[in-house]
Amino acid sequence: MAYNFLLKDLNLNLTQKSIGTDKGLAKIGDGVVNLTYSVAKSMYLTRNNKNNKIIRTGKKVSKTILAEALKDANMKSFSRNRANAHDLADTVEAIIAYIWFSEKMAMEEMINLLADSLTGDLYIRHIEIESAKIAFTKLLNHIKKYLPEN
Amino acid sequence: MAYNFLLKDLNLNLTQKSIGTDKGLAKIGDGVVNLTYSVAKSMYLTRNNKNNKIIRTGKKVSKTILAEALKDANMKSFSRNRANAHDLADTVEAIIAYIWFSEKMAMEEMINLLADSLTGDLYIRHIEIESAKIAFTKLLNHIKKYLPEN
Repeated sequence: MAYNFLLKDLNLNLTQKSIGTDKGLAKIGDGVVNLTYSVAKSMYLTRNNKNNKIIRTGKKVSKTILAEALKDANMKSFSRNRANAHDLADTVEAIIAYIWFSEKMAMEEMINLLADSLTGDLYIRHIEIESAKIAFTKLLNHIKKYLPEN
Repeated sequence: MAYNFLLKDLNLNLTQKSIGTDKGLAKIGDGVVNLTYSVAKSMYLTRNNKNNKIIRTGKKVSKTILAEALKDANMKSFSRNRANAHDLADTVEAIIAYIWFSEKMAMEEMINLLADSLTGDLYIRHIEIESAKIAFTKLLNHIKKYLPEN
């Protein structure tokens, strides 16, 4: 992908907060998060379907799940001070858009990491929430090394 | 991408309608459409910004735009009989997800085609609507050759 020019201003002074509080990145990341999770969930459900049924599904990832994942990955420092759950979720979305645009990780790799991290019966709501939280925490822990240290 | 297995059931008897009326594909395609358009719009606005400002933005593409694009590309045959605008938009989303999953076109190529097709001042709402409609019509016309003839 040749979209690095969309990060030119950010890259001039790259900090955890300049990435994690960028509103535009968060908007784009919202799309990346929902799409990668939808495909990962479809893969997981298809792989684990007892009747070999193919499952294609779309799913919006809740702000709560993303906020919890950011906390569990110890990455609240990317968000603004006194951030609420909505801010923390936006930060996850911004980070993921940054990683995608800067080609640190391809969308396919994100999808595979999420799909391989899902566990349990996702048709049960509280299990899906817990499983999605763990999967996004794993993704954040994985991409930490590509992000500024402060 | 190795997601072709998510199309296995469809590929057994591939028709315009089996693609265009698939609810799961439409859900996934909703994400692809919004993400590709968001990045394409960001690229277009950044390229054309008089102050060399970088613009990152997210944008949900309306059902009306997608429905009109399907009609303008003469691809209503992919939708169900007596389809309303919502059905037609879902059909566009399903087609785009199918093309992405089957690797006929990479997401980057879709983004570039959309970005190169946008024109005019997208900050004026009716101009953006018209421009987005034309861009998605071009995308549909481009991918027609990868789709079943009936």
